Amino acid sequence: MDFQLNCPIPISEYPVITMAHGSGGRLSHQLIDKMFVPTFSSEQLSAGHDGAVFSAGSGNLAFTTDSFVVKPIFFPGGNIGDLAVNGTVNDLACCGARPEYLSVGMILEEGLPMDELWKIVLTMKQAADMAGVQIVTGDTKVVDRGSGDKIFINTTGIGRVKQGVSIDPSSCKPGDIVILSGYIGDHGVAIMSAREGIEFETGIESDSAPLNGLVEEILEASNNISVLRDPTRGGVATTLNEISRSSGAGIVLDETSIPVRQEVQGACEVLGLDAMYIANEGKLLVIVKEEDSEKVLEAMKNHPLGTHSAIIGKLTEDHPSIVRMTTSIGSSRIIDMLTGEQLPRIC
Amino acid sequence: MDFQLNCPIPISEYPVITMAHGSGGRLSHQLIDKMFVPTFSSEQLSAGHDGAVFSAGSGNLAFTTDSFVVKPIFFPGGNIGDLAVNGTVNDLACCGARPEYLSVGMILEEGLPMDELWKIVLTMKQAADMAGVQIVTGDTKVVDRGSGDKIFINTTGIGRVKQGVSIDPSSCKPGDIVILSGYIGDHGVAIMSAREGIEFETGIESDSAPLNGLVEEILEASNNISVLRDPTRGGVATTLNEISRSSGAGIVLDETSIPVRQEVQGACEVLGLDAMYIANEGKLLVIVKEEDSEKVLEAMKNHPLGTHSAIIGKLTEDHPSIVRMTTSIGSSRIIDMLTGEQLPRIC
Repeated sequence: MDFQLNCPIPISEYPVITMAHGSGGRLSHQLIDKMFVPTFSSEQLSAGHDGAVFSAGSGNLAFTTDSFVVKPIFFPGGNIGDLAVNGTVNDLACCGARPEYLSVGMILEEGLPMDELWKIVLTMKQAADMAGVQIVTGDTKVVDRGSGDKIFINTTGIGRVKQGVSIDPSSCKPGDIVILSGYIGDHGVAIMSAREGIEFETGIESDSAPLNGLVEEILEASNNISVLRDPTRGGVATTLNEISRSSGAGIVLDETSIPVRQEVQGACEVLGLDAMYIANEGKLLVIVKEEDSEKVLEAMKNHPLGTHSAIIGKLTEDHPSIVRMTTSIGSSRIIDMLTGEQLPRIC
Repeated sequence: MDFQLNCPIPISEYPVITMAHGSGGRLSHQLIDKMFVPTFSSEQLSAGHDGAVFSAGSGNLAFTTDSFVVKPIFFPGGNIGDLAVNGTVNDLACCGARPEYLSVGMILEEGLPMDELWKIVLTMKQAADMAGVQIVTGDTKVVDRGSGDKIFINTTGIGRVKQGVSIDPSSCKPGDIVILSGYIGDHGVAIMSAREGIEFETGIESDSAPLNGLVEEILEASNNISVLRDPTRGGVATTLNEISRSSGAGIVLDETSIPVRQEVQGACEVLGLDAMYIANEGKLLVIVKEEDSEKVLEAMKNHPLGTHSAIIGKLTEDHPSIVRMTTSIGSSRIIDMLTGEQLPRIC
């Protein structure tokens, strides 16, 4: 292969990787959409899901990967271990799959205290048990001090797609309803509060949790689900932008309906952040046909991880591929994709 | 879960992770066998293969993961990209599976030159095409400068196990023959020669290559294959020790039959290394019933990646779970598992 092939990203403009390339926002999308997807070119990658689905025997399997580089590795409500298990469990659940098998790839930095590793390993086992998934294969590498940061964990998962389920963002249509499973921003604020140098105490814990049980209730309640997504990096705003762009439909949100804890709102004001862009690790966005929306909302509210679920908006033909929010004072503003990076190493 | 549960590795003796925990040798095994396998406890992990096999529909699927942290990322004969694709392709092939799908998880360090990333991505695509495997899902994270080292890549793969094939190290029996597919140590010496500060020029290139084609020829030639393994970290010596321990059989090797290039032998002498412990990335160890050994050797020699294949030893009941080598001067010595670490960050 000719390495002189033009790089699809203009090198004069973007000569090096920056933190923003890992933000989940605009530069992350540029890297994925211009470099990775066209070069690796496969049907599944082009679909732009969080996971790949392929047929195996009589059904379909879902396959998804995630690396975790969160800093610090221990934070209120969890650590990198349960985050790594839940993150991949949730991506499988969002493919409409029942998570079955996980691989674990660890990159350890020389000097990592053995007892910290042990705590993380125990937490991973506990999270795997809670989600009903088995860890079946793994790999461990060690890098010299200063070439890593304590521990990075890759989890890759395989799940079986529920018979008859097809989650397809391209089936979104104007009129569809957007439901969110609960309070936004908890994970990001918990990480911020745990970081050195950030001097505030919120009492907020990460919402890290396995969503597969909640997803099962939703799929039981309705066959009319177009999208299931967990709004992690880039937050609810970025995930809704991705859905809006891939479906071509506009989305209109009602600010007053979006559940945000007062402490999270307060922390965001202090830090100059917007909760709509902050990562969540145990929340679900659902897009469902209007006729099934109340049924689905009801099912979600009956699940422990969805008690604060709310309808937060709907799809519209008024402004294709654009997300707008009607604010509490009645005005309307565009909610764009995250530009640059707001909170690095959040997951 | 109670985090006060005793850590299965004595913390007073091993308070922190050291480079030797990533060597593939004794401390790597301690970490895996004492901490990871019993804690994550699944049937597949306990089998101690490089990959997990599970049933799906009418057949079996193999599932394997590997993270790559090689330094430097470009070296004679390849770069971290083809290494990452071939490494996982080879682990699937060693499960007797035809590699089908790969996930790619990248951890990029802030400041990585965009053109280096582009070269790596192109190389991955080229390697995937050569192995006939599709990259179907991925994830990208960026860590701040000094918290990573240019690029780490996790590849996780799924393959379909050939009908009727069962590769099972526990089926090894005394009398079985050990075949090696070619010259040892090329990859490790290529990495060493590319490292800053190592001032010798060998002309040796990494042997990084996809072994699935060679494996198909072998499985075509015989149904009596007990083990297929690619001797990467820890080299031929460590892999044979793993096989010997898990099967309980001893292994006796003939030093004069082991293919080593003169330049590799020379480099090892200069560096005080033993080629038997040096990583390979395109070599295969096969254990086969004696009656099929000539047939399999013939099939291997007819494949471009196996032209230098040789019978290097056999399994014996004389010294259970121990590997011995008859040297060129007629003496015999124990070939133990790698202790400590010989070449860090080789893959």
